[in-house]
Amino acid sequence: MSRFWSPIVSELTPYVAGEQPRIDNLVKLNTNESPYPPSPRALAAIRDAASDSLRLYPDPTALALRTAIAGDLGLTAEEIFVGNGSDEVLAHAFVSLLKHEAPLLYPDISYSFYPTYCRLFGISAETVALDETMRIRIGDYDRPAGAIILPNPNAPTGIALPLSDIRALLERHADKPVIIDEAYVDFGAESAATLIASHPNLLVIQTFSKSRGLAGLRVGFAAGQRPLIEGLERVKDSFNSYPLDRLALAGATAAWQDHAWFETHRDKIIASRDRLTDALSALGFEVLPSSANFVFTRHAGYAGADLAAALRARAILVRHFAKPRISDYLRISIGTDGECDRLIAALTEIVSGR
Amino acid sequence: MSRFWSPIVSELTPYVAGEQPRIDNLVKLNTNESPYPPSPRALAAIRDAASDSLRLYPDPTALALRTAIAGDLGLTAEEIFVGNGSDEVLAHAFVSLLKHEAPLLYPDISYSFYPTYCRLFGISAETVALDETMRIRIGDYDRPAGAIILPNPNAPTGIALPLSDIRALLERHADKPVIIDEAYVDFGAESAATLIASHPNLLVIQTFSKSRGLAGLRVGFAAGQRPLIEGLERVKDSFNSYPLDRLALAGATAAWQDHAWFETHRDKIIASRDRLTDALSALGFEVLPSSANFVFTRHAGYAGADLAAALRARAILVRHFAKPRISDYLRISIGTDGECDRLIAALTEIVSGR
Repeated sequence: MSRFWSPIVSELTPYVAGEQPRIDNLVKLNTNESPYPPSPRALAAIRDAASDSLRLYPDPTALALRTAIAGDLGLTAEEIFVGNGSDEVLAHAFVSLLKHEAPLLYPDISYSFYPTYCRLFGISAETVALDETMRIRIGDYDRPAGAIILPNPNAPTGIALPLSDIRALLERHADKPVIIDEAYVDFGAESAATLIASHPNLLVIQTFSKSRGLAGLRVGFAAGQRPLIEGLERVKDSFNSYPLDRLALAGATAAWQDHAWFETHRDKIIASRDRLTDALSALGFEVLPSSANFVFTRHAGYAGADLAAALRARAILVRHFAKPRISDYLRISIGTDGECDRLIAALTEIVSGR
Repeated sequence: MSRFWSPIVSELTPYVAGEQPRIDNLVKLNTNESPYPPSPRALAAIRDAASDSLRLYPDPTALALRTAIAGDLGLTAEEIFVGNGSDEVLAHAFVSLLKHEAPLLYPDISYSFYPTYCRLFGISAETVALDETMRIRIGDYDRPAGAIILPNPNAPTGIALPLSDIRALLERHADKPVIIDEAYVDFGAESAATLIASHPNLLVIQTFSKSRGLAGLRVGFAAGQRPLIEGLERVKDSFNSYPLDRLALAGATAAWQDHAWFETHRDKIIASRDRLTDALSALGFEVLPSSANFVFTRHAGYAGADLAAALRARAILVRHFAKPRISDYLRISIGTDGECDRLIAALTEIVSGR
């Protein structure tokens, strides 16, 4: 605490990202990155953009990237907003759309950046408990609210809501903004982007960090009708004119356009998830049904923290949250089959006490 | 205005960046970019980083870049904060250090993003008028205040304060944060970074966009004693964990380390500025004494807006601000000598009525 700080600073509880340690021969299954290198077309586009033109500011409107995304979603570029990772898009969305007198609602078990944003921006919020099976029940959101945000699939549970539930939620709350945070949607859920034309209150947020294999490039986007996007633009243009550098713009545009890479690697990750789920189940783990590039799992005989520590001792990183309701679970990113095999071998050792 | 917006959104007046048009054979002297391509070492480092590792998140602490910067400033990495351009660093600094009950002070003629931040973050502010010669007089800041921010050199005037004035300002206001925004410092002013060790209230902010020729990469930094930097980190980690992508980290680190490139191109720009100043003076322009990579100039016989329009008609872009006190001036970025020659040829035509 410093006498030079603005008063808000001492009240903040910053988000803690998964660690990025340097350990030899590490199996890194803690931050939901793709186990596969990104599209070679994206890498080539970045190398091309590493040129003399870096002396010039990037396009502050990111028009080429927004046009590429919009085309595939059946939207116009004016209905797309891009930012420095979906975290920055979320931050601007919290400021521009989610701060109302009535509280913002989100699940009690959800992306832990949400309460951090609320504290930074002074947004009143209430959490809505997942049911006893760790599922979002949309009926539970029928209460006074200024806005709603939900991840779909939810994180860290990995459980997806069907599109019919999202539609029902949008219709029950047609008078308020509803944000669907689709960071993991490509791995088995249905995107709500198809509902944008019929629902002016819907904002969909996605990222290039997971299914596009570009966590290191920092690109995310939002899709919605023009008034919501304009709200985001007004906040962004009051904060930082050029959040995406020339390299990120070039790489993300090329990555988005490489449909074959996207489908191949998404399918590989889904296949590995199914295989890992079977192997974990065979070891006595309960695995929540995942539509994401991770599984959320627990074992009746072992505390989550102990399992995470035992894996770490074997140079395997998974994510453990020391939080109510989920402290017995591990969130395990889907690696290559080889990485999943190393994980299963280690867990076999651990649960057999060897 | 949308019923889905948070109330703040309709009160915002977003910053308007200089335009980035696509016009053939354009002489672009409107956004203070470097006329020279960046260090080849930076481009090589970026190409190397355009690799499979882009699937992984970047180092959220940007330790390698912070260490490189700190070394040259005689500071430790813990005393450096980096962000997505100095605009993002400024935004976090406004939130973390400049929001107090007493008003923030800054010059009436200054970086026009400052009032935009104040509106976004709800910061009360008062402007302090430049004197009749367009200079900052530090004695004018002896009034009730919660914090102070000054560009040095100031923009868009280009006029620098001597370090003795900055020191006096820091000592007169030892009880409050004082930010010196040094976006243009390398072109002829003295950095206040040497005062950090002795002044716990000082934060210095710089950018890679101007003197490092990397406007397209989006990297800026702040330097200050640990408590100020910790305030910035707390806000950043409540907003976006990874604002610098892997390419920006690699490129900026290499650019910072290329001292020879930096010195050569800085000296070229200073030489071109002197040459341009002489040529403008010969045409009857008044040119404020610039320590930046631009000049701020007016002609008694012509309105600034008319001159800017006449130049634009000749495919030469300069910046004109339709604002009180400065509407007769043009802010002209220093180009190559060839670009400056085209500008002078065009202005010669315009002022001779040809």
